[in-house]
Amino acid sequence: MLPLEVLEQAQAELTDWQGSGMSVIEVSHRGKDFVECAQRTEAKLRQAMGVPDDYRVLFLQGGATAQFSVVPLNLTAPGQLACYLKTGAWSGKAIAAARRQSVEVEVLADQSESSYTTLPAPGSFNPPSDAAYLHYTPNETIGGVEFDYLPATGSVPLVGDFSSTILSRPLDVSRFGLIYAGAQKNLGPSGLCLVIVRDDLLGQARSNTPDLFDYAAMAKADSMINTPPTFSIYLLGLVLDWVERQGGAAGLGQLNQAKAAALYDAIDASDFYTNPVTPHARSWMNVVFTLADPALDAVFASQAAAAGLTNLKGHRSVGGVRASLYNAMPLSGVEALIDFMANFERRQG
Amino acid sequence: MLPLEVLEQAQAELTDWQGSGMSVIEVSHRGKDFVECAQRTEAKLRQAMGVPDDYRVLFLQGGATAQFSVVPLNLTAPGQLACYLKTGAWSGKAIAAARRQSVEVEVLADQSESSYTTLPAPGSFNPPSDAAYLHYTPNETIGGVEFDYLPATGSVPLVGDFSSTILSRPLDVSRFGLIYAGAQKNLGPSGLCLVIVRDDLLGQARSNTPDLFDYAAMAKADSMINTPPTFSIYLLGLVLDWVERQGGAAGLGQLNQAKAAALYDAIDASDFYTNPVTPHARSWMNVVFTLADPALDAVFASQAAAAGLTNLKGHRSVGGVRASLYNAMPLSGVEALIDFMANFERRQG
Repeated sequence: MLPLEVLEQAQAELTDWQGSGMSVIEVSHRGKDFVECAQRTEAKLRQAMGVPDDYRVLFLQGGATAQFSVVPLNLTAPGQLACYLKTGAWSGKAIAAARRQSVEVEVLADQSESSYTTLPAPGSFNPPSDAAYLHYTPNETIGGVEFDYLPATGSVPLVGDFSSTILSRPLDVSRFGLIYAGAQKNLGPSGLCLVIVRDDLLGQARSNTPDLFDYAAMAKADSMINTPPTFSIYLLGLVLDWVERQGGAAGLGQLNQAKAAALYDAIDASDFYTNPVTPHARSWMNVVFTLADPALDAVFASQAAAAGLTNLKGHRSVGGVRASLYNAMPLSGVEALIDFMANFERRQG
Repeated sequence: MLPLEVLEQAQAELTDWQGSGMSVIEVSHRGKDFVECAQRTEAKLRQAMGVPDDYRVLFLQGGATAQFSVVPLNLTAPGQLACYLKTGAWSGKAIAAARRQSVEVEVLADQSESSYTTLPAPGSFNPPSDAAYLHYTPNETIGGVEFDYLPATGSVPLVGDFSSTILSRPLDVSRFGLIYAGAQKNLGPSGLCLVIVRDDLLGQARSNTPDLFDYAAMAKADSMINTPPTFSIYLLGLVLDWVERQGGAAGLGQLNQAKAAALYDAIDASDFYTNPVTPHARSWMNVVFTLADPALDAVFASQAAAAGLTNLKGHRSVGGVRASLYNAMPLSGVEALIDFMANFERRQG
């Protein structure tokens, strides 16, 4: 979901960008206009996230799924130890991908026994000091769990996959070695992946790492070893302008907390709807719930769609209902869902 | 460059796609509407290029530069022999990337001694029968050379990087093992890379190949292991509709031949402009030329830009002038350039 005002701006200038007579889709990525657009976009991201000066911002392709392999290629030698927290489907994929790059993976916390309905407590896991990094997934979209704290890792670099939660609330970037995020959920269109990496972690990539996936090579080339996803970078810039108009990460954090609280309150107040997640681990971005009778799941989703509430079907691996409350979802959208849920429950009574 | 009518269609439906009330940028890639869009786009591409049934069409990310590494990861074991033709900057990059994947590279023809102004004659190179493939770059954008024939390789799979020449003229896909092409020059926006691969070449990827770069895994998932570059796939579909309206590859081939012939004729008729390329190797897509006095290069480019003729600066590595005549460039655009060239020459006289 994208803010309508962002889409309308993109629409207005799609055939003639900045008076160039060309579409931003057509302009050369090496031309002055686009280079400036990319630089402005990076500056806006740094401002919005408070990225310290000793971190590089990269615009990559392939989504977070590519980073599952690219992170170990850049930060480990074959056989080196890397620690992971397994808290759901996405962190599970990251672990599997790392193992295929011959990383010695140590899973410090595995929540599969809880069916991923809770998260490890702060301080309950400690990476050995010789680990290359600790990787975690701050928000798991399928289980609907989200860390409400930053893992402490001592001197070991912390790596986070922020694809589904970037810029949804304030974040202390200086606590991380590396942050990556597919842009398509909170920041813009698909096909663009952000990497924010601390300078001292650059330059350790394995010798067989393709240039395009070598953070140091991409940093040196300002993310333009080859043609970058230009339209996506442009659109990210428009989204970041919108983020600023919402009060930045702080403003969005307040809004997202209010949206999530309203929906969880409605679920908890009902015997008809149930959310399985421990309260401290509940996601602000993806609220999962089940109905009293699983046979009603499909009816709920179809009637909701008819009422204009789309994309509520739970992930195919777990069923149930999932409401995704990414940044562009307004509070009114959540309120409309809560009203629909109350009416649906009444109709079943 | 994109056809204006394609941009106008994308603009008209940018905020409300197919009456969905959502932008195509926002819709879920797993939703019925987008899955159908991707299927239609693939069908249109198969139709336009005449892709045989025993080939798979993949929509990938990372451009041709990623494929420089991904091709050897998929088609060779470490140490295996692969043959390359070195005909310019892009094939040179492909060779360097393959070597980083521990491929035993044999360069069957190296045109660097000619400063890349000609191409090897048909039959002058023959890959050993145990080579994994023969890789070549049908069109080199910097040198402005283009093969006017398909290399014969016997039973060795032929691999071609068609980024700058795909769908610019008819092509016998059945002669290839694998074709790849970044979409941004002839087919649409940046951030999308096409791969057309013969079925029997799937399933040989090295064990450390990330899923996202494993052709067989991507084929199995219909190119949707993760979120694909949805807007780019949609836009490719619009471009392919436009290709059909131009008479398909045959119609575009006639047009592109006429565009190139007009410009080369004007260059050859002048003592002021010079194209260094052997006639049979001259590119239809990228026409490079130099001026009688290299000091005039910058003046030419700046006056041309003032006249609305943009992107004429030669590549920074070779200087001079380069006119790119990709599909979306109309004959009238080439005629305007030829007029400008004649006037510029007169003014210098």
